[in-house]
Amino acid sequence: MKPTIAVALTRPQKKRVAIVEAAVRLFLDSGFDGTSMDDVAAKAGVSKPTLYRYFADKDGLYAAAVQATVDDVDHLLRLVAEELASDVHPRKELRRLAIKMLSALMRPDLLRLRRLVIAQADKFPEVGQNWFSQGFGRVLDTLAAAFTRYDKSGYLRVRDPMLAANHFAGLLLWIPLNRAMFTGQVKYDISELETYANAAVEAFLEGYGSRRR
Amino acid sequence: MKPTIAVALTRPQKKRVAIVEAAVRLFLDSGFDGTSMDDVAAKAGVSKPTLYRYFADKDGLYAAAVQATVDDVDHLLRLVAEELASDVHPRKELRRLAIKMLSALMRPDLLRLRRLVIAQADKFPEVGQNWFSQGFGRVLDTLAAAFTRYDKSGYLRVRDPMLAANHFAGLLLWIPLNRAMFTGQVKYDISELETYANAAVEAFLEGYGSRRR
Repeated sequence: MKPTIAVALTRPQKKRVAIVEAAVRLFLDSGFDGTSMDDVAAKAGVSKPTLYRYFADKDGLYAAAVQATVDDVDHLLRLVAEELASDVHPRKELRRLAIKMLSALMRPDLLRLRRLVIAQADKFPEVGQNWFSQGFGRVLDTLAAAFTRYDKSGYLRVRDPMLAANHFAGLLLWIPLNRAMFTGQVKYDISELETYANAAVEAFLEGYGSRRR
Repeated sequence: MKPTIAVALTRPQKKRVAIVEAAVRLFLDSGFDGTSMDDVAAKAGVSKPTLYRYFADKDGLYAAAVQATVDDVDHLLRLVAEELASDVHPRKELRRLAIKMLSALMRPDLLRLRRLVIAQADKFPEVGQNWFSQGFGRVLDTLAAAFTRYDKSGYLRVRDPMLAANHFAGLLLWIPLNRAMFTGQVKYDISELETYANAAVEAFLEGYGSRRR
Protein backbone atom coordinates (compact mmCIF):
# COMPACT_ATOMS: atom_id res chain seq x y z
CA MET A 1 0.00 0.00 0.00
CA LYS A 2 2.95 2.29 -0.70
CA PRO A 3 3.00 4.95 -3.37
CA THR A 4 5.76 4.42 -5.91
CA ILE A 5 8.94 6.13 -4.88
CA ALA A 6 11.29 7.24 -7.63
CA VAL A 7 15.03 6.88 -7.15
CA ALA A 8 16.00 10.52 -6.68
CA LEU A 9 13.33 12.80 -5.32
CA THR A 10 13.60 16.52 -4.83
CA ARG A 11 12.78 17.91 -1.39
CA PRO A 12 9.27 19.04 -2.40
CA GLN A 13 8.64 15.63 -4.00
CA LYS A 14 9.75 13.90 -0.83
CA LYS A 15 7.36 16.03 1.20
CA ARG A 16 4.53 15.22 -1.19
CA VAL A 17 5.28 11.50 -0.86
CA ALA A 18 5.31 11.78 2.94
CA ILE A 19 1.96 13.58 2.90
CA VAL A 20 0.36 11.10 0.54
CA GLU A 21 1.70 8.13 2.52
CA ALA A 22 0.34 9.59 5.76
CA ALA A 23 -3.01 10.23 4.08
CA VAL A 24 -3.26 6.67 2.72
CA ARG A 25 -2.59 5.26 6.19
CA LEU A 26 -5.08 7.55 7.92
CA PHE A 27 -7.86 7.07 5.35
CA LEU A 28 -7.43 3.29 5.64
CA ASP A 29 -7.47 3.33 9.43
CA SER A 30 -10.10 6.00 10.09
CA GLY A 31 -12.08 6.35 6.87
CA PHE A 32 -12.73 9.51 4.90
CA ASP A 33 -14.92 11.27 7.46
CA GLY A 34 -12.67 10.18 10.32
CA THR A 35 -9.57 11.80 8.81
CA SER A 36 -8.84 15.53 9.09
CA MET A 37 -6.24 17.68 7.38
CA ASP A 38 -4.80 18.28 10.87
CA ASP A 39 -4.31 14.52 11.33
CA VAL A 40 -2.52 14.26 8.00
CA ALA A 41 -0.21 17.20 8.71
CA ALA A 42 0.70 15.72 12.08
CA LYS A 43 1.32 12.22 10.74
CA ALA A 44 3.35 13.50 7.78
CA GLY A 45 5.36 15.78 10.04
CA VAL A 46 4.60 18.96 8.10
CA SER A 47 2.90 22.21 9.12
CA LYS A 48 -0.66 22.92 8.06
CA PRO A 49 0.36 25.76 5.70
CA THR A 50 2.82 23.35 4.05
CA LEU A 51 0.11 20.70 3.69
CA TYR A 52 -2.24 23.22 2.09
CA ARG A 53 0.47 24.27 -0.37
CA TYR A 54 0.38 20.71 -1.72
CA PHE A 55 -3.32 19.96 -1.38
CA ALA A 56 -6.00 22.64 -1.28
CA ASP A 57 -8.51 20.41 0.49
CA LYS A 58 -9.24 16.93 1.78
CA ASP A 59 -11.03 15.97 -1.44
CA GLY A 60 -7.90 16.54 -3.52
CA LEU A 61 -5.76 14.73 -0.98
CA TYR A 62 -8.13 11.75 -1.01
CA ALA A 63 -7.97 11.55 -4.81
CA ALA A 64 -4.16 11.66 -4.72
CA ALA A 65 -3.95 9.07 -1.94
CA VAL A 66 -6.13 6.55 -3.75
CA GLN A 67 -4.36 7.20 -7.05
CA ALA A 68 -0.99 6.56 -5.37
CA THR A 69 -2.00 2.96 -4.67
CA VAL A 70 -2.77 1.84 -8.22
CA ASP A 71 0.80 0.65 -8.79
CA ASP A 72 0.11 -1.86 -6.04
CA VAL A 73 -1.16 -4.32 -8.66
CA ASP A 74 2.18 -4.33 -10.50
CA HIS A 75 3.24 -7.58 -8.83
CA LEU A 76 -0.10 -9.11 -9.89
CA LEU A 77 0.62 -8.15 -13.49
CA ARG A 78 3.98 -9.86 -13.25
CA LEU A 79 2.35 -12.94 -11.71
CA VAL A 80 -0.14 -13.22 -14.56
CA ALA A 81 2.54 -12.70 -17.19
CA GLU A 82 4.87 -15.23 -15.57
CA GLU A 83 2.32 -17.92 -14.84
CA LEU A 84 0.55 -17.77 -18.18
CA ALA A 85 3.62 -17.72 -20.44
CA SER A 86 3.75 -21.44 -21.19
CA ASP A 87 2.65 -23.21 -24.34
CA VAL A 88 0.95 -26.12 -22.62
CA HIS A 89 -2.62 -26.65 -21.47
CA PRO A 90 -2.90 -24.03 -18.71
CA ARG A 91 -4.78 -25.97 -16.04
CA LYS A 92 -1.82 -26.18 -13.64
CA GLU A 93 -0.80 -22.61 -14.40
CA LEU A 94 -4.29 -21.24 -13.86
CA ARG A 95 -4.57 -23.04 -10.54
CA ARG A 96 -1.26 -21.63 -9.36
CA LEU A 97 -2.18 -18.16 -10.59
CA ALA A 98 -5.64 -18.33 -8.98
CA ILE A 99 -4.30 -19.11 -5.54
CA LYS A 100 -1.61 -16.43 -5.84
CA MET A 101 -4.15 -13.86 -7.01
CA LEU A 102 -6.45 -14.69 -4.12
CA SER A 103 -3.64 -14.39 -1.60
CA ALA A 104 -2.61 -11.04 -3.05
CA LEU A 105 -6.11 -9.60 -3.23
CA MET A 106 -7.14 -10.76 0.23
CA ARG A 107 -4.47 -8.69 1.99
CA PRO A 108 -6.12 -6.68 4.78
CA ASP A 109 -4.90 -3.29 3.57
CA LEU A 110 -6.08 -3.88 0.02
CA LEU A 111 -9.50 -5.00 1.24
CA ARG A 112 -9.71 -1.91 3.41
CA LEU A 113 -8.75 0.28 0.48
CA ARG A 114 -11.39 -1.41 -1.66
CA ARG A 115 -13.97 -0.76 1.02
CA LEU A 116 -12.90 2.88 1.34
CA VAL A 117 -13.14 3.50 -2.40
CA ILE A 118 -16.57 1.84 -2.57
CA ALA A 119 -17.78 3.83 0.42
CA GLN A 120 -16.80 7.11 -1.26
CA ALA A 121 -17.85 6.21 -4.82
CA ASP A 122 -21.05 8.26 -4.70
CA LYS A 123 -19.06 11.36 -3.84
CA PHE A 124 -15.94 10.55 -5.91
CA PRO A 125 -17.04 8.46 -8.90
CA GLU A 126 -13.94 9.36 -10.93
CA VAL A 127 -11.57 8.27 -8.17
CA GLY A 128 -13.33 4.90 -8.04
CA GLN A 129 -13.37 4.59 -11.82
CA ASN A 130 -9.64 5.35 -12.10
CA TRP A 131 -8.70 3.13 -9.21
CA PHE A 132 -10.50 0.17 -10.72
CA SER A 133 -9.44 0.69 -14.32
CA GLN A 134 -5.79 1.56 -13.61
CA GLY A 135 -5.56 -1.00 -10.83
CA PHE A 136 -7.41 -4.28 -11.25
CA GLY A 137 -8.39 -3.29 -14.79
CA ARG A 138 -4.77 -3.77 -15.87
CA VAL A 139 -4.80 -7.24 -14.35
CA LEU A 140 -7.87 -8.00 -16.47
CA ASP A 141 -6.10 -6.65 -19.58
CA THR A 142 -3.12 -8.91 -18.96
CA LEU A 143 -5.36 -11.92 -18.35
CA ALA A 144 -7.26 -11.15 -21.56
CA ALA A 145 -4.00 -11.01 -23.52
CA ALA A 146 -2.94 -14.39 -22.12
CA PHE A 147 -6.35 -15.93 -22.94
CA THR A 148 -6.01 -14.63 -26.52
CA ARG A 149 -2.70 -16.49 -26.84
CA TYR A 150 -4.19 -19.70 -25.43
CA ASP A 151 -7.05 -19.36 -27.89
CA LYS A 152 -4.55 -19.11 -30.77
CA SER A 153 -2.63 -22.14 -29.58
CA GLY A 154 -5.93 -24.04 -29.25
CA TYR A 155 -5.96 -24.63 -25.49
CA LEU A 156 -8.91 -22.32 -24.84
CA ARG A 157 -11.86 -21.12 -26.89
CA VAL A 158 -12.13 -17.41 -26.23
CA ARG A 159 -14.35 -15.27 -28.43
CA ASP A 160 -14.29 -12.19 -26.20
CA PRO A 161 -11.01 -12.14 -24.21
CA MET A 162 -12.01 -9.26 -21.89
CA LEU A 163 -15.28 -10.98 -21.07
CA ALA A 164 -13.40 -14.22 -20.40
CA ALA A 165 -10.99 -12.36 -18.10
CA ASN A 166 -13.94 -10.90 -16.18
CA HIS A 167 -15.60 -14.31 -15.99
CA PHE A 168 -12.40 -15.83 -14.61
CA ALA A 169 -12.24 -13.04 -12.01
CA GLY A 170 -15.93 -13.37 -11.16
CA LEU A 171 -15.71 -17.13 -10.68
CA LEU A 172 -12.60 -16.76 -8.55
CA LEU A 173 -13.37 -13.70 -6.47
CA TRP A 174 -17.14 -13.55 -5.99
CA ILE A 175 -17.29 -15.71 -2.87
CA PRO A 176 -14.21 -14.62 -0.90
CA LEU A 177 -14.45 -10.93 -1.84
CA ASN A 178 -18.11 -10.74 -0.83
CA ARG A 179 -17.33 -12.37 2.45
CA ALA A 180 -14.47 -9.96 3.06
CA MET A 181 -16.49 -6.92 2.00
CA PHE A 182 -19.58 -7.69 4.06
CA THR A 183 -18.07 -9.18 7.19
CA GLY A 184 -14.69 -7.55 7.35
CA GLN A 185 -13.22 -11.06 7.46
CA VAL A 186 -9.72 -10.70 6.14
CA LYS A 187 -8.06 -13.88 7.36
CA TYR A 188 -8.33 -17.04 5.31
CA ASP A 189 -6.41 -20.22 5.72
CA ILE A 190 -4.60 -21.39 2.67
CA SER A 191 -6.71 -24.55 2.22
CA GLU A 192 -9.87 -22.45 2.04
CA LEU A 193 -8.33 -20.24 -0.65
CA GLU A 194 -7.18 -23.34 -2.54
CA THR A 195 -10.71 -24.70 -2.54
CA TYR A 196 -12.08 -21.48 -4.07
CA ALA A 197 -9.21 -21.30 -6.54
CA ASN A 198 -9.51 -24.86 -7.82
CA ALA A 199 -13.31 -24.69 -8.10
CA ALA A 200 -13.08 -21.48 -10.10
CA VAL A 201 -10.42 -22.85 -12.45
CA GLU A 202 -12.41 -26.03 -13.11
CA ALA A 203 -15.61 -24.07 -13.83
CA PHE A 204 -13.65 -21.72 -16.09
CA LEU A 205 -11.97 -24.54 -17.99
CA GLU A 206 -15.30 -26.31 -18.43
CA GLY A 207 -16.67 -23.14 -19.96
CA TYR A 208 -13.64 -21.99 -21.90
CA GLY A 209 -11.62 -25.16 -22.32
CA SER A 210 -11.09 -26.20 -25.90
CA ARG A 211 -12.12 -29.61 -27.18
CA ARG A 212 -9.94 -29.03 -30.23
CA ARG A 213 -6.74 -30.30 -28.63
CA MET B 1 -36.21 -0.57 0.56
CA LYS B 2 -39.20 -0.72 2.90
CA PRO B 3 -39.29 -2.69 6.12
CA THR B 4 -42.00 -5.31 6.17
CA ILE B 5 -45.20 -3.96 7.62
CA ALA B 6 -47.57 -6.42 9.27
CA VAL B 7 -51.30 -5.97 8.84
CA ALA B 8 -52.28 -4.68 12.25
CA LEU B 9 -49.60 -2.84 14.17
CA THR B 10 -49.89 -1.51 17.68
CA ARG B 11 -49.06 2.14 18.24
CA PRO B 12 -45.56 1.40 19.57
CA GLN B 13 -44.94 -0.93 16.64
CA LYS B 14 -46.03 1.78 14.22
CA LYS B 15 -43.65 4.23 15.84
CA ARG B 16 -40.83 1.75 15.61
CA VAL B 17 -41.54 1.21 11.91
CA ALA B 18 -41.59 4.98 11.33
CA ILE B 19 -38.25 5.35 13.10
CA VAL B 20 -36.62 2.50 11.22
CA GLU B 21 -37.96 3.75 7.87
CA ALA B 22 -36.63 7.22 8.57
CA ALA B 23 -33.28 5.77 9.59
CA VAL B 24 -32.99 3.64 6.42
CA ARG B 25 -33.68 6.70 4.26
CA LEU B 26 -31.20 8.90 6.11
CA PHE B 27 -28.41 6.31 6.24
CA LEU B 28 -28.83 5.74 2.48
CA ASP B 29 -28.81 9.45 1.67
CA SER B 30 -26.19 10.69 4.14
CA GLY B 31 -24.19 7.63 5.19
CA PHE B 32 -23.56 6.44 8.74
CA ASP B 33 -21.38 9.33 9.87
CA GLY B 34 -23.63 11.87 8.18
CA THR B 35 -26.74 10.76 10.08
CA SER B 36 -27.47 11.85 13.65
CA MET B 37 -30.08 10.66 16.13
CA ASP B 38 -31.53 14.20 15.89
CA ASP B 39 -32.01 13.80 12.14
CA VAL B 40 -33.78 10.48 12.63
CA ALA B 41 -36.11 11.81 15.33
CA ALA B 42 -37.03 14.79 13.14
CA LYS B 43 -37.63 12.71 10.03
CA ALA B 44 -39.65 10.09 11.92
CA GLY B 45 -41.70 12.81 13.64
CA VAL B 46 -40.90 11.62 17.17
CA SER B 47 -39.24 13.34 20.11
CA LYS B 48 -35.69 12.48 21.07
CA PRO B 49 -36.72 10.81 24.36
CA THR B 50 -39.14 8.66 22.37
CA LEU B 51 -36.44 7.72 19.87
CA TYR B 52 -34.08 6.73 22.70
CA ARG B 53 -36.77 4.55 24.26
CA TYR B 54 -36.68 2.46 21.08
CA PHE B 55 -32.98 2.63 20.31
CA ALA B 56 -30.33 3.34 22.90
CA ASP B 57 -27.79 4.57 20.34
CA LYS B 58 -27.05 5.04 16.65
CA ASP B 59 -25.26 1.69 16.45
CA GLY B 60 -28.39 -0.21 17.46
CA LEU B 61 -30.53 1.84 15.12
CA TYR B 62 -28.15 1.16 12.23
CA ALA B 63 -28.31 -2.59 12.86
CA ALA B 64 -32.12 -2.49 12.96
CA ALA B 65 -32.33 -0.36 9.81
CA VAL B 66 -30.12 -2.69 7.76
CA GLN B 67 -31.89 -5.76 9.13
CA ALA B 68 -35.27 -4.29 8.13
CA THR B 69 -34.24 -4.40 4.47
CA VAL B 70 -33.45 -8.10 4.18
CA ASP B 71 -37.02 -8.96 3.13
CA ASP B 72 -36.35 -6.82 0.08
CA VAL B 73 -35.05 -9.91 -1.74
CA ASP B 74 -38.39 -11.74 -1.36
CA HIS B 75 -39.44 -10.81 -4.89
CA LEU B 76 -36.09 -12.15 -6.15
CA LEU B 77 -36.80 -15.46 -4.42
CA ARG B 78 -40.17 -15.63 -6.16
CA LEU B 79 -38.51 -14.79 -9.48
CA VAL B 80 -36.02 -17.62 -9.13
CA ALA B 81 -38.72 -20.10 -8.05
CA GLU B 82 -41.03 -19.07 -10.89
CA GLU B 83 -38.47 -18.94 -13.66
CA LEU B 84 -36.71 -22.17 -12.77
CA ALA B 85 -39.77 -24.36 -12.24
CA SER B 86 -39.90 -25.91 -15.71
CA ASP B 87 -38.81 -29.38 -16.73
CA VAL B 88 -37.08 -28.34 -19.95
CA HIS B 89 -33.51 -27.32 -20.70
CA PRO B 90 -33.24 -24.07 -18.74
CA ARG B 91 -31.36 -21.87 -21.25
CA LYS B 92 -34.32 -19.59 -21.99
CA GLU B 93 -35.36 -19.55 -18.33
CA LEU B 94 -31.87 -18.71 -17.10
CA ARG B 95 -31.58 -15.87 -19.59
CA ARG B 96 -34.90 -14.42 -18.49
CA LEU B 97 -33.99 -14.85 -14.84
CA ALA B 98 -30.54 -13.32 -15.34
CA ILE B 99 -31.88 -10.13 -16.86
CA LYS B 100 -34.57 -9.83 -14.18
CA MET B 101 -32.04 -10.40 -11.41
CA LEU B 102 -29.74 -7.77 -12.86
CA SER B 103 -32.56 -5.25 -13.14
CA ALA B 104 -33.61 -5.92 -9.55
CA LEU B 105 -30.10 -5.77 -8.11
CA MET B 106 -29.07 -2.64 -10.00
CA ARG B 107 -31.77 -0.48 -8.39
CA PRO B 108 -30.13 2.71 -7.05
CA ASP B 109 -31.36 2.25 -3.46
CA LEU B 110 -30.17 -1.34 -3.26
CA LEU B 111 -26.74 -0.37 -4.61
CA ARG B 112 -26.54 2.43 -2.07
CA LEU B 113 -27.50 0.04 0.71
CA ARG B 114 -24.85 -2.40 -0.45
CA ARG B 115 -22.27 0.37 -0.42
CA LEU B 116 -23.35 1.48 3.06
CA VAL B 117 -23.10 -2.03 4.50
CA ILE B 118 -19.67 -2.55 2.93
CA ALA B 119 -18.47 0.82 4.22
CA GLN B 120 -19.45 -0.12 7.79
CA ALA B 121 -18.40 -3.78 7.70
CA ASP B 122 -15.21 -3.19 9.70
CA LYS B 123 -17.23 -1.66 12.54
CA PHE B 124 -20.33 -3.88 12.18
CA PRO B 125 -19.23 -7.26 10.81
CA GLU B 126 -22.33 -9.04 12.13
CA VAL B 127 -24.69 -6.60 10.45
CA GLY B 128 -22.91 -7.22 7.15
CA GLN B 129 -22.88 -10.97 7.68
CA ASN B 130 -26.61 -11.09 8.47
CA TRP B 131 -27.55 -8.76 5.66
CA PHE B 132 -25.72 -10.89 3.11
CA SER B 133 -26.78 -14.30 4.43
CA GLN B 134 -30.44 -13.43 5.11
CA GLY B 135 -30.67 -11.28 1.99
CA PHE B 136 -28.80 -12.39 -1.11
CA GLY B 137 -27.81 -15.64 0.64
CA ARG B 138 -31.43 -16.82 0.40
CA VAL B 139 -31.39 -16.10 -3.33
CA LEU B 140 -28.31 -18.32 -3.59
CA ASP B 141 -30.08 -21.07 -1.59
CA THR B 142 -33.06 -20.96 -3.95
CA LEU B 143 -30.80 -21.02 -7.00
CA ALA B 144 -28.91 -23.98 -5.54
CA ALA B 145 -32.18 -25.89 -4.99
CA ALA B 146 -33.22 -25.27 -8.59
CA PHE B 147 -29.82 -26.40 -9.90
CA THR B 148 -30.14 -29.59 -7.86
CA ARG B 149 -33.45 -30.34 -9.61
CA TYR B 150 -31.95 -29.65 -13.04
CA ASP B 151 -29.10 -31.97 -12.17
CA LYS B 152 -31.59 -34.73 -11.29
CA SER B 153 -33.51 -34.22 -14.52
CA GLY B 154 -30.22 -34.32 -16.42
CA TYR B 155 -30.17 -30.79 -17.84
CA LEU B 156 -27.24 -29.63 -15.72
CA ARG B 157 -24.28 -31.36 -14.10
CA VAL B 158 -24.01 -29.91 -10.62
CA ARG B 159 -21.80 -31.57 -8.05
CA ASP B 160 -21.87 -28.71 -5.53
CA PRO B 161 -25.15 -26.77 -5.93
CA MET B 162 -24.17 -23.88 -3.64
CA LEU B 163 -20.88 -23.44 -5.48
CA ALA B 164 -22.76 -23.51 -8.78
CA ALA B 165 -25.17 -20.86 -7.48
CA ASN B 166 -22.25 -18.68 -6.48
CA HIS B 167 -20.57 -19.24 -9.84
CA PHE B 168 -23.77 -18.23 -11.62
CA ALA B 169 -23.95 -15.08 -9.49
CA GLY B 170 -20.26 -14.31 -9.98
CA LEU B 171 -20.46 -14.68 -13.75
CA LEU B 172 -23.58 -12.52 -13.88
CA LEU B 173 -22.83 -9.82 -11.35
CA TRP B 174 -19.06 -9.31 -11.30
CA ILE B 175 -18.90 -6.74 -14.11
CA PRO B 176 -22.00 -4.60 -13.48
CA LEU B 177 -21.77 -4.70 -9.67
CA ASN B 178 -18.12 -3.67 -9.70
CA ARG B 179 -18.89 -0.81 -12.03
CA ALA B 180 -21.76 0.30 -9.82
CA MET B 181 -19.74 -0.06 -6.62
CA PHE B 182 -16.66 1.79 -7.83
CA THR B 183 -18.15 4.50 -9.98
CA GLY B 184 -21.55 5.01 -8.41
CA GLN B 185 -23.01 4.36 -11.87
CA VAL B 186 -26.51 3.13 -11.23
CA LYS B 187 -28.15 3.62 -14.61
CA TYR B 188 -27.88 0.91 -17.22
CA ASP B 189 -29.78 0.62 -20.42
CA ILE B 190 -31.58 -2.63 -20.89
CA SER B 191 -29.47 -3.76 -23.87
CA GLU B 192 -26.30 -3.48 -21.77
CA LEU B 193 -27.84 -5.62 -19.04
CA GLU B 194 -28.99 -8.13 -21.65
CA THR B 195 -25.45 -8.44 -22.97
CA TYR B 196 -24.09 -9.22 -19.48
CA ALA B 197 -26.96 -11.59 -18.77
CA ASN B 198 -26.65 -13.63 -21.96
CA ALA B 199 -22.87 -13.85 -21.72
CA ALA B 200 -23.10 -15.08 -18.13
CA VAL B 201 -25.73 -17.69 -18.97
CA GLU B 202 -23.72 -19.03 -21.92
CA ALA B 203 -20.54 -19.29 -19.82
CA PHE B 204 -22.51 -20.96 -17.04
CA LEU B 205 -24.16 -23.47 -19.38
CA GLU B 206 -20.81 -24.27 -20.99
CA GLY B 207 -19.47 -25.06 -17.55
CA TYR B 208 -22.50 -26.72 -16.02
CA GLY B 209 -24.51 -27.83 -19.04
CA SER B 210 -25.02 -31.56 -19.27
CA ARG B 211 -24.02 -33.53 -22.30
CA ARG B 212 -26.16 -36.40 -21.04
CA ARG B 213 -29.37 -35.15 -22.70
